[in-house]
Amino acid sequence: MTRVGLSCSTFLPNPVLRKAHRVLIFMDTASSKSSLGVVTPQRAAFSEPLPLTCGRSIANYELAYETYGTLNAARTNAVLVCHALNASHHVAGIYADDPNNVGWWDNMIGPGKPLDTNRFFVIGVNNLGGCHGSTGPLSVNPDTGKPWGASFPVVTVDDWVDAQARLADHLGIKRFAAVMGGSLGAMQCMCWSIAYPERVRHALVIACAPNLSAQNIAFNEVARQAILTDPDFYGGDYYEHGVQPRRGLRVARMVGHITYLSDDEMGSKFGRTLKAGKLGYSFDTEFEIESYLRYQGDKFSGYFDANTYLRITKALDYFDPALEHGGDLAKAMAPAKCGFLVVSFTTDWRFSPERSREIVHALLKNKREVTYAEIDAPHGHDAFLLEDPRYHKLVAAYFDRVHAEVGA
Amino acid sequence: MTRVGLSCSTFLPNPVLRKAHRVLIFMDTASSKSSLGVVTPQRAAFSEPLPLTCGRSIANYELAYETYGTLNAARTNAVLVCHALNASHHVAGIYADDPNNVGWWDNMIGPGKPLDTNRFFVIGVNNLGGCHGSTGPLSVNPDTGKPWGASFPVVTVDDWVDAQARLADHLGIKRFAAVMGGSLGAMQCMCWSIAYPERVRHALVIACAPNLSAQNIAFNEVARQAILTDPDFYGGDYYEHGVQPRRGLRVARMVGHITYLSDDEMGSKFGRTLKAGKLGYSFDTEFEIESYLRYQGDKFSGYFDANTYLRITKALDYFDPALEHGGDLAKAMAPAKCGFLVVSFTTDWRFSPERSREIVHALLKNKREVTYAEIDAPHGHDAFLLEDPRYHKLVAAYFDRVHAEVGA
Repeated sequence: MTRVGLSCSTFLPNPVLRKAHRVLIFMDTASSKSSLGVVTPQRAAFSEPLPLTCGRSIANYELAYETYGTLNAARTNAVLVCHALNASHHVAGIYADDPNNVGWWDNMIGPGKPLDTNRFFVIGVNNLGGCHGSTGPLSVNPDTGKPWGASFPVVTVDDWVDAQARLADHLGIKRFAAVMGGSLGAMQCMCWSIAYPERVRHALVIACAPNLSAQNIAFNEVARQAILTDPDFYGGDYYEHGVQPRRGLRVARMVGHITYLSDDEMGSKFGRTLKAGKLGYSFDTEFEIESYLRYQGDKFSGYFDANTYLRITKALDYFDPALEHGGDLAKAMAPAKCGFLVVSFTTDWRFSPERSREIVHALLKNKREVTYAEIDAPHGHDAFLLEDPRYHKLVAAYFDRVHAEVGA
Repeated sequence: MTRVGLSCSTFLPNPVLRKAHRVLIFMDTASSKSSLGVVTPQRAAFSEPLPLTCGRSIANYELAYETYGTLNAARTNAVLVCHALNASHHVAGIYADDPNNVGWWDNMIGPGKPLDTNRFFVIGVNNLGGCHGSTGPLSVNPDTGKPWGASFPVVTVDDWVDAQARLADHLGIKRFAAVMGGSLGAMQCMCWSIAYPERVRHALVIACAPNLSAQNIAFNEVARQAILTDPDFYGGDYYEHGVQPRRGLRVARMVGHITYLSDDEMGSKFGRTLKAGKLGYSFDTEFEIESYLRYQGDKFSGYFDANTYLRITKALDYFDPALEHGGDLAKAMAPAKCGFLVVSFTTDWRFSPERSREIVHALLKNKREVTYAEIDAPHGHDAFLLEDPRYHKLVAAYFDRVHAEVGA
């Protein structure tokens, strides 16, 4: 089991902005991680209508989820892991019938891992509107007997969190030891801390921003336009036509992927390396980076639902807790009561460290307990998914503290 | 006429990297600019086959061009202006029958402007493969009587420069006082200095890079895939089907446009401003930035040829003078004899100042005469097209020196 200690848990405004590796020199590196092994997805059905931000509501929906570890008798050790753009409730472990399908945050969660399933009861959930088991656009609308398609509502981060809170009720969890997520998942954690302050002890807000910049929205809009203008989109009702807007989804994924990696990381991974060793002067793949992007686009468009992708990019665009407080993030975060771990990565140009610092400053204005680390990592936004030792030790140390509070 | 003096013309390695505004404190701000007025496009026909980098050659092609000012008796005052991605030979002035069609670098070129047409004979040319008058994919192939379409060769920066050299022969210009361009236009200037060292006195290399990074190629590839997978593309022979792959070209332009502006510029221009003042929770335009991008995409896809766009992005990808010198840019630039003005812009993340400095260092290694300025401008890559006083005064001062060398 990882036994590490963080030298200081609450930083003050300026030292707060120090790099994580300066913090982590006090840490022990010992660990004995193992795999979670086979996990089983579950489903929970909800009949009571859920009011949505858009003004509509949805009844008779299901949420797909997974749990790892054991809920303690006091029900104090539950941790909710929120997913980002294209992930799901399959956060860790493998499936018995599909052993290559490893959970998206398997390096982070499991026995002896930073979020240790020997200590914590971990819940992963596919968000409402998703395409991995929860009710979404490709589900059959019980009122019509046809797929929801275009008629599925536009959902927001707030809606997701409200649905997750009902799942928590269903599982008998009054208060989470922690909610945790990266990127869009971290936005859900911010939302939890504001909307349900009594139900969250700690929020781990990783590679996040308090809202999307104009450039972030612009990239989302390019992705959406690629899908919306694909002739196979049929206004969102493509299921009835037996097609998928795969071309659009492919381009959408390609443009998204560029923003997940740093310029330097792309340079060192691919540079100007040629696929065939020499130039062909054609529109076939010339450079390795082209081949990589096409592969990513093809793969994604083969398993992801375009209507879900559209809605998730909209949820990203809309997230802006400060909006109803005249742009004052500190006011927006005032209801939050939990402790926070905020982590950013130096080369993340999608949600840069500057954006995470906005969150930290808003929390400090409210005299909240905040640990902030800026991890010097070359991988860009995707760093939050990777196994960087400094980053993982930081998270492990934070969970040590959470564990000390809530018990096993 | 602008009368300004640059304090130092050749910088040494470290001071070279200073900001332009520090250099420009010695400058007089007086100027009396006027418009060039009506200009007339011309065409030159070439029958001799032009060998191309791809191994093919092209015969019986035409180049569209414009000239401004007067060639002096000694034929020493000609300046070639090379265009970037979506521009043309219409560099300055207006057309008699279309007075709103102002040349793309009109703020830079004209009587009393930084490139002063009272002193210089300025030539703008539409590159081979273009869609504004020069022979390109939408031209009729005389051998078949049908549009070239997919059969038009893949062209490179080297090919363009070779074609421009023939236009120079046609106009009786043995040596240019200067070649000038921004972005892809500047790559042509670099190529001129290497391929035709005796024919260029000065090269103005603005907002340039010695080659595209993996990330640059990635953005081009997204744009290409949007076009290539548009069902209206028909493998490049869409003219025969009476359609254009407008959807793909629209997405291509949108993604390109994001890279032309800085994140900050997008933020200050659009931020998260809503189009209708409140959120609509639909896939209509919510934010101003979406509206702007859609407008840019719609406009571009209405006038630009997709086959040309594909080829221009490939020319960008292929440009890499150091490739045949084992990646040694200094070796690649060794043949160059001209003086250089290299200009970069601080917020340009498409071709960052670091990339321009690579060019400067390669030239200094060859003991070439280099003036380098890094302009502190908020506009990103597009800054090279905008009328920033420090930038324009720098170019004006450089042309003063060129003028002193070549006479009027």
